Amino acid sequence: MVEIAADPSHPRYQSLLMRHRLEQAEKKGMLAGSALIAHGRGEAFDYLLGEQTIPSALIATQHSLAILSAAQHPVISLNGNVVALAGKEVLHLAHLLQCPVEINIFYRTPERMKALLDHLNEIKQQEEFDVEILGAEPDARIPGLEGPRANCSKQGIFDSDVILVPLEDGDRCEALVAMGKTVLVIDLNPLSRTARMASVTIVDELSRVITNMNRMLLSNEPVQQVKNYQNSQTLQETLGHIATFLSSKV
Amino acid sequence: MVEIAADPSHPRYQSLLMRHRLEQAEKKGMLAGSALIAHGRGEAFDYLLGEQTIPSALIATQHSLAILSAAQHPVISLNGNVVALAGKEVLHLAHLLQCPVEINIFYRTPERMKALLDHLNEIKQQEEFDVEILGAEPDARIPGLEGPRANCSKQGIFDSDVILVPLEDGDRCEALVAMGKTVLVIDLNPLSRTARMASVTIVDELSRVITNMNRMLLSNEPVQQVKNYQNSQTLQETLGHIATFLSSKV
Repeated sequence: MVEIAADPSHPRYQSLLMRHRLEQAEKKGMLAGSALIAHGRGEAFDYLLGEQTIPSALIATQHSLAILSAAQHPVISLNGNVVALAGKEVLHLAHLLQCPVEINIFYRTPERMKALLDHLNEIKQQEEFDVEILGAEPDARIPGLEGPRANCSKQGIFDSDVILVPLEDGDRCEALVAMGKTVLVIDLNPLSRTARMASVTIVDELSRVITNMNRMLLSNEPVQQVKNYQNSQTLQETLGHIATFLSSKV
Repeated sequence: MVEIAADPSHPRYQSLLMRHRLEQAEKKGMLAGSALIAHGRGEAFDYLLGEQTIPSALIATQHSLAILSAAQHPVISLNGNVVALAGKEVLHLAHLLQCPVEINIFYRTPERMKALLDHLNEIKQQEEFDVEILGAEPDARIPGLEGPRANCSKQGIFDSDVILVPLEDGDRCEALVAMGKTVLVIDLNPLSRTARMASVTIVDELSRVITNMNRMLLSNEPVQQVKNYQNSQTLQETLGHIATFLSSKV
């Protein structure tokens, strides 16, 4: 059992809160077996960022939000960890953007799908968010992928022009890019295949990113697309930041 | 369910094998709730090492083995992840060094202790290792620690002069150093408090380290203590290695 610090100013408050959310999600059957290991990998990379939103990530966040806001058919793709870690924040973002979310999980079982849908619908009702939750009945396939992981909703991911996919798998990121979509990802590992394949990579912790986006939208802070955005430059700046962090510890 | 590649030459064979071992251990009730997250953190740091034993880690391994070999009362402290990931290899090492092992876990419950003891005793019998397994009946306490995590065996950890503690918690590492022991740790995070507190820190993946030690002992490869060993230098060399790795990706 994870003990959550009572005081949000505790330096490990956020990190313990995220672990607590995963623990609750596991009890509800929302997570795949690899979920906790994946989260641990993220924790290590976040540690190397100093557990903060670094400047290049904030720019990538603003750029992504501007692209989402201007999209014709935006969609937010959700997996188990995303729903567990930031289900409420993500539904709030979708509510503000007036775009659907789609549950799209790698290890698809009816039990996990039901647990995730129930959890999201509960939040949606409690918070009175006006958001369409897709994914329950996939009726299209992502070309280039095999098996159940190719399943998606025509109205959601398949027909989208812009897709925000936090914590995505490399194969699926590649397949979505190959479909011609603008793929915005949130990934703490700047060296992952997902990070390298995406149109825009936000190297930052999921709940921080979504909270930043919601804050920008609620404050009417103007967010603009970066002209001639180069994702490789974002990744380079991130690696530079980590290298400086490591040097400071020597 | 983790799929293990049938072919050991598969690039992800070792990593998938370790996940498989954790999965088996979880089914047996050997692991604490935080075990998989901790393993994920390790995976990320190992990725930054290039999933290999780097030169500074090999030197720290040789130095540690020489210290263990020369000790009066050496002991190897084991937690759930260590037993899961390298139970057999560690018992083999203890057999070769003719030193006891002690199960010493942070979240101590009778059920976990029994699962770990059963697992180790099964290996011991199968492999005919001549090793004393301590920890079932703690009769001493590590000064400076509170609650069950202070419990230890007088004959093992308490009276040891040299202790090998893979994957140790920072508080306990500090408490063991304060007892005047030579504390040898295996920790993939070169910035952790454990890594900084220890007498010698081997920044390498657990099963690689123990396999290296067993190979050195079985081949009669001479291992010598490093004169005027400075652990801070080992950590600096490790950070330098990671910084170079990151630069190569830019």
